[in-house]
Amino acid sequence: MGGRKIPDVVVRRLPLYLRVLEELDVEETPIISSHELGEQSGVTPGQLRKDLSFFGVFGKQGVGYNTLYLREELRRILRLNQQVNVGLVGVGNLGMALIHYHKAQEHPDGIGRWLAAAFDIDPQKIGDRVSDVPIYSVGELPEMIRRLELSIIILAVPAEVTEEIFHSCLNSGVRAFLNFAPGKLSVPDHVRIHVTDVTLELESLAYYR
Amino acid sequence: MGGRKIPDVVVRRLPLYLRVLEELDVEETPIISSHELGEQSGVTPGQLRKDLSFFGVFGKQGVGYNTLYLREELRRILRLNQQVNVGLVGVGNLGMALIHYHKAQEHPDGIGRWLAAAFDIDPQKIGDRVSDVPIYSVGELPEMIRRLELSIIILAVPAEVTEEIFHSCLNSGVRAFLNFAPGKLSVPDHVRIHVTDVTLELESLAYYR
Repeated sequence: MGGRKIPDVVVRRLPLYLRVLEELDVEETPIISSHELGEQSGVTPGQLRKDLSFFGVFGKQGVGYNTLYLREELRRILRLNQQVNVGLVGVGNLGMALIHYHKAQEHPDGIGRWLAAAFDIDPQKIGDRVSDVPIYSVGELPEMIRRLELSIIILAVPAEVTEEIFHSCLNSGVRAFLNFAPGKLSVPDHVRIHVTDVTLELESLAYYR
Repeated sequence: MGGRKIPDVVVRRLPLYLRVLEELDVEETPIISSHELGEQSGVTPGQLRKDLSFFGVFGKQGVGYNTLYLREELRRILRLNQQVNVGLVGVGNLGMALIHYHKAQEHPDGIGRWLAAAFDIDPQKIGDRVSDVPIYSVGELPEMIRRLELSIIILAVPAEVTEEIFHSCLNSGVRAFLNFAPGKLSVPDHVRIHVTDVTLELESLAYYR
């Protein structure tokens, strides 16, 4: 990436801003203020301006942001203007849910458009398709990562095999992961792993109940 | 809650600190420095100290935190020292995955210990049990929320019914939600909803690939 290191929390907020911008009617809202965009994204205007300042100057003071331009810039920064191919490892209940939610329902913002392949160890599933997503053997991961240029891997496998599969993907050059399994993985510096940990979510929710 | 408003990002980090403290052997590590605790939690020592300062003074400068004391304090702050009863609405693939991951595997840190009831509309499922969790009809939500004192609701239902079920729970006094369905809910001020949105996760991961 080069340049100064961008805090992960900032990168994680960019898709929120992008989503708000994508839902706007550009004809109706050609310009949007940091106040308005911040409010719709759930952050303060100051936070929004600070986040964007990591990447350049996008708006005019007292005028606001050009909706279309900022949208395109955010897509460029997040590299969403290029093809993203995602692989899903584990077609159990969770894997099925991920495919169905986003693929079968044809959710336009869903991951369906990115889901290029799924992987499992169950011979009953291998060779099959779920909502159009082909299921390969976990053993084929290295080959398929290369062939399909999978750049993000979703790990939806039991905790005890996560580590092994993670390393197999690492060795094939994958640098971005979304992990649904509990338990910690030791992650090299150049690799990014986002963890969806329901227990942590619930523990922080306990504060608010 | 009372007092000054604590930023949500801070509340969300507390379970991370707690997890590190719970994994420590207190005999071996009776005292932990902010440097060490921060590092193991993935934040800077400064961030850790600032987060904790919202809730009081827990350590001695130049000495560190008493592991056992800070652990208990974090449990108290997060209200995890009281019984937490969680209800899960939607026993489809995702709901099944949530139950299995955390209940059937007897994962000690899992949500299994909290999962008091599940709800579905499928007559085939109602009255049944999945890994010991009883499944009720969605129509029984208001009654069961009161009877079982469910204080957190997990929404794992299709997007088109999320809003209706959300409001039914709101009306029964639930103030904390974990939502897996895509789409925005309008949330009253006193209510907290955490969203697990796979698409947003993948969009931020796209930056790192």
